[in-house]
Amino acid sequence: MTDVAKKKKADRNRSIDPAVLEVLARELPVDTAYDRYLSQQPQCKFGDTGICCRICIQGPCRITPKAPKGVCGATAYTIVARNLVRTVTGGASAHSDHAKHILLTLKALLNGHAPDYSIKSPEKLRAVAERFDIPTDGRTDLEVLADLVQLGLEDFTRMGEGSVKWVEKTVTPGRVQKFQECNVMPTSVFEAIASATAQTHVGMDADPVNLIFKALETSLADYTGMHIGTDMSDVLFGVPQPVYTEANMGVIDPAKVNIAVHGHNPLLSEMIVLAARELEEEAKAAGAAGIQLMGICCTGNEVLMRQGVPPVTNFMSQELPIMTGAIDAMVVDLQCIMPGIQTAAECFHTKIVTTCENVKIPGAHHIDFKEEKALEDAKTVIRIAIDSYKERIGQECIIPEIKNKVVAGFSMEALYDLFSAINPDAPIKVLTDALKSGELRGVVLLCGCNNLKAMHDESHTVIAQELAKNDVFMVSTGCAAGAYAKLGLLSPEAVDKYAGEGLKRFINRLNEANADKLEGKLPLIFHMGSCVDNSRSMNLATAIANDFGVDIPKIPYAASAPEAMSEKAVAIGSWNVTMGLPVHVGVVPPVTGSELVNGVATQIAHDVYGGYFIWETDPHAAAQKLLEALDYRSWKLRVHNQTAERYSAAASTTW
Amino acid sequence: MTDVAKKKKADRNRSIDPAVLEVLARELPVDTAYDRYLSQQPQCKFGDTGICCRICIQGPCRITPKAPKGVCGATAYTIVARNLVRTVTGGASAHSDHAKHILLTLKALLNGHAPDYSIKSPEKLRAVAERFDIPTDGRTDLEVLADLVQLGLEDFTRMGEGSVKWVEKTVTPGRVQKFQECNVMPTSVFEAIASATAQTHVGMDADPVNLIFKALETSLADYTGMHIGTDMSDVLFGVPQPVYTEANMGVIDPAKVNIAVHGHNPLLSEMIVLAARELEEEAKAAGAAGIQLMGICCTGNEVLMRQGVPPVTNFMSQELPIMTGAIDAMVVDLQCIMPGIQTAAECFHTKIVTTCENVKIPGAHHIDFKEEKALEDAKTVIRIAIDSYKERIGQECIIPEIKNKVVAGFSMEALYDLFSAINPDAPIKVLTDALKSGELRGVVLLCGCNNLKAMHDESHTVIAQELAKNDVFMVSTGCAAGAYAKLGLLSPEAVDKYAGEGLKRFINRLNEANADKLEGKLPLIFHMGSCVDNSRSMNLATAIANDFGVDIPKIPYAASAPEAMSEKAVAIGSWNVTMGLPVHVGVVPPVTGSELVNGVATQIAHDVYGGYFIWETDPHAAAQKLLEALDYRSWKLRVHNQTAERYSAAASTTW
Repeated sequence: MTDVAKKKKADRNRSIDPAVLEVLARELPVDTAYDRYLSQQPQCKFGDTGICCRICIQGPCRITPKAPKGVCGATAYTIVARNLVRTVTGGASAHSDHAKHILLTLKALLNGHAPDYSIKSPEKLRAVAERFDIPTDGRTDLEVLADLVQLGLEDFTRMGEGSVKWVEKTVTPGRVQKFQECNVMPTSVFEAIASATAQTHVGMDADPVNLIFKALETSLADYTGMHIGTDMSDVLFGVPQPVYTEANMGVIDPAKVNIAVHGHNPLLSEMIVLAARELEEEAKAAGAAGIQLMGICCTGNEVLMRQGVPPVTNFMSQELPIMTGAIDAMVVDLQCIMPGIQTAAECFHTKIVTTCENVKIPGAHHIDFKEEKALEDAKTVIRIAIDSYKERIGQECIIPEIKNKVVAGFSMEALYDLFSAINPDAPIKVLTDALKSGELRGVVLLCGCNNLKAMHDESHTVIAQELAKNDVFMVSTGCAAGAYAKLGLLSPEAVDKYAGEGLKRFINRLNEANADKLEGKLPLIFHMGSCVDNSRSMNLATAIANDFGVDIPKIPYAASAPEAMSEKAVAIGSWNVTMGLPVHVGVVPPVTGSELVNGVATQIAHDVYGGYFIWETDPHAAAQKLLEALDYRSWKLRVHNQTAERYSAAASTTW
Repeated sequence: MTDVAKKKKADRNRSIDPAVLEVLARELPVDTAYDRYLSQQPQCKFGDTGICCRICIQGPCRITPKAPKGVCGATAYTIVARNLVRTVTGGASAHSDHAKHILLTLKALLNGHAPDYSIKSPEKLRAVAERFDIPTDGRTDLEVLADLVQLGLEDFTRMGEGSVKWVEKTVTPGRVQKFQECNVMPTSVFEAIASATAQTHVGMDADPVNLIFKALETSLADYTGMHIGTDMSDVLFGVPQPVYTEANMGVIDPAKVNIAVHGHNPLLSEMIVLAARELEEEAKAAGAAGIQLMGICCTGNEVLMRQGVPPVTNFMSQELPIMTGAIDAMVVDLQCIMPGIQTAAECFHTKIVTTCENVKIPGAHHIDFKEEKALEDAKTVIRIAIDSYKERIGQECIIPEIKNKVVAGFSMEALYDLFSAINPDAPIKVLTDALKSGELRGVVLLCGCNNLKAMHDESHTVIAQELAKNDVFMVSTGCAAGAYAKLGLLSPEAVDKYAGEGLKRFINRLNEANADKLEGKLPLIFHMGSCVDNSRSMNLATAIANDFGVDIPKIPYAASAPEAMSEKAVAIGSWNVTMGLPVHVGVVPPVTGSELVNGVATQIAHDVYGGYFIWETDPHAAAQKLLEALDYRSWKLRVHNQTAERYSAAASTTW
């Protein structure tokens, strides 16, 4: 190997996942994202800092000392803010598209046009309905569902007046008041998306603060779509409960028909799980030992959470399982699907199957998946995989023998079940008492994507380990959770290995109280689900704030997206800030081209909403900043509590 | 003056408008768009050709020979197509935002919350209602309006199933069938915008053809919003009828309070017209000779069409009237408002007044214009201008003494009135007979913006003159019409100067037949209104096609946007292509980075939809290509007609 080739190979090793490194170390027949990232260097600094405007075709305009304004006179702050609004809008549109499909499937179910779906959790249905004061007593599930679906559709389509119920009824009273005062409460998901896009058209808003407020409104529309997505998925497929499984490429079984489900939406993947069970014998008849399902990205998280399907890898490395030669089909629905998987598949026998009319890849096999014939479509996919398996017989597969134990499935309901074993009357107090006593230093949501601007999975891992050592209770979603699954941080063993004394004591108390109910012990980090399920984290924060009798900006709760990549991540980060949380992002988003916008994001947001962004690319430093943010809030809460105690004998709702 | 300074000044003269050149020739205290365009040179070729992807924050990714794919594996065709979808979505969102405000004002009117507005054209109301089979007999205007507004709101908010009525009921049966077959009929405006944005999120659609079809669906949502905007504006403010006035900076009167209205939406500007009339005496009391209103961009077109307010300039030169020192206030609503006007205004006494909550400019005076108190808000604006006038007294104004006669106000209804004087039974036959006989060579819509990639107003002018010479009947909208107004091409004199014999004969026949009804003679080009009113042009094309008994792709009708700039222009161009027209664009949009996408736009679109794009930056060559497109269609129609005659004795619906 030449020196250049060696260097290229070394450069390519931008991951800490040993399975990924093992595959990348081979001579691969095709470039992967790791190679393409290197080919894209150096990346354009104008785009990277947000000061390239392509909103009209008189552009591109780029801000430089020589050209401090675009042709229309837009300055850096206008351009950066407009780009930011459009990014958040992209995220909100994606989440709402996901939720829309679930809502419309429920509508089809109500109309008898989705025969393979049913209400798996009537309890959740009724709990959600009661949240919105929909009558449940003496009514059938379908009657309740009809009202709930109608409410969801209205939250998508309301126009001109009113506001989204999924924000109004799921956050603290303080937040509702704040959103109304700041005029950032969305009317509906669709109106927010359309009006945000309009507000950033050429010759529209030039005021960066007005634009940023629009971005926040749109981020709350994103929250709305996500929360509808989570609620309705739970109704349709069941509320996640603890599951025990394994993760990483070692779960690929060369003797079986290996099918990876990839994307975000459980509508397809739940049917794949069902179809795989039904067609196990067909696979055996074809000479396989059975069917091995595995998940990638958030479809992976969905079927992990509800079905215990093992995650094989996360976003960044989605092409690499194909390189083992053992993936017979990769079936995808929507979002975060690299077109690169098709090129990779063409070098092996793997079949890529696309299933959504709005996600096609030239060269891939497309099945027009419809709720009317969902199981039939899923069976078609399984049979494609079985046929593909037959082609593979006799061919060499090289599978990294790396996998780790995983405990997942921690919906809010599942967490409450665990807490109830200690305090059945007020489960949340198990957590808030531990925060009050200092046993736990705070709560952090670890979430977001992968992004090769950071070393793959490294920032996720370093931050989690640092927070664990410092007694932070951690919940996780998305590709962050995917990283932890692969790398053993969702295992009970990780508690012994990484948790500080307080956290260890807290988790062990839960272990003891729930010993009879659980298959095994609890993990270091509590996997709450897919990216859409970040709504669960906000439910947890809201419950904590309500128990403390304060608003979200006062509780020791933070979020971190160490390797954020997608527009969805920017939208999620924005609503977490709007909700009042410190939000660390480990990849600096394109806002630094305007000191004003950057200042609003990192400082002024705090004055208005209580939340703010922390950009920090060094994961060790990021962990310290998160700890400082938690400690500051804990200190303030203690002062608040002492003051409150001084003035009130009955301080039961405060610290 | 140094050589460099001289060269800079010469370079800056990127206009053929003598008034613009006169202002630019001065020592100006501040940069204008003409200077900023030069400062932005050279512009980024990646953005310019569409192969820069900033859809996720792992980017920017740029396609080069060294890096033929983005990090995710997206190739040039995916990136270009995704960017195109987002551009069309930007346009659709802007037009729908405009129409939404009008719909919601009508809703407020129905609820008694818009006391200053009323139904100005009950005839139009009933005509539009009948188009949608809304009962009108024996019902009050408000009853009919309530149903119509409801239908409009549904076209915005429908979700999951159904399709937009404003497309279904305004185009040829052939088009409806084509849109359904190609799956590009939008469900609703909002759903199209949200789903198009979602479809272009990272990891979503990678198929360029699927993406382009989504762009076309979204462009039909754009058409829907525009058509609702035009219809509802006509109901609310009256259907335009021929008006005679003047245009260009010579309309500024230093002795009067000069108020420029700028933007797009008639909701504000109509109230400004009303308020100006009511407050004329206040202006006189302040020492002025009265109030001089004038228009810029499409708000200018709206009040020109319905109120005869003179246009002072168009998009590119919007900062320059301020430089005369005589503009007391520039009041803006939405779209195409350069932030640069505020910087210009700060060097003079001019007050910039913003009025929309989604369009603010730091430093400008903001009035929160609401329909509940529209006239009161408009009066506040007028009084700001009167106060500003007082500051101006004694200061020097330098106003170019350049203005031209303008005849405008040609709604479809107004054109039909003209035609009816010749053929009251079948007015459209006046036009189609002239096309059949060869007196007219075709019809061309001249539309779109200004863009300094072309010499300001030059391409508009050259193309119009060439087409006139070649007997093409021309209708116009937007800043194209603004250019013609300023430069004398909307005058009767231009007919003598530029029209070929056939066109001259045709217009003179209309002149003679309507002599008793018109204040003067007809112009060379028929001004149909603002950009939103491109829907009127499609109504004309549809009427022609229906009279010929063929679908739109067969009629000698084309569109040209010689100086396209905004996302709206790209959306309009896209639906004109989808409707079946050849569409010339004089500035190459960012699609040439993918041969595939470019080929679809310029060639393959023709096979599917009958329409196609012509990119041609040379206006002389563009005129030739438009003529060739018309001639080809006329030739085909003649062949079609001869064939039809051979097979049918009654060929009345064909040529």
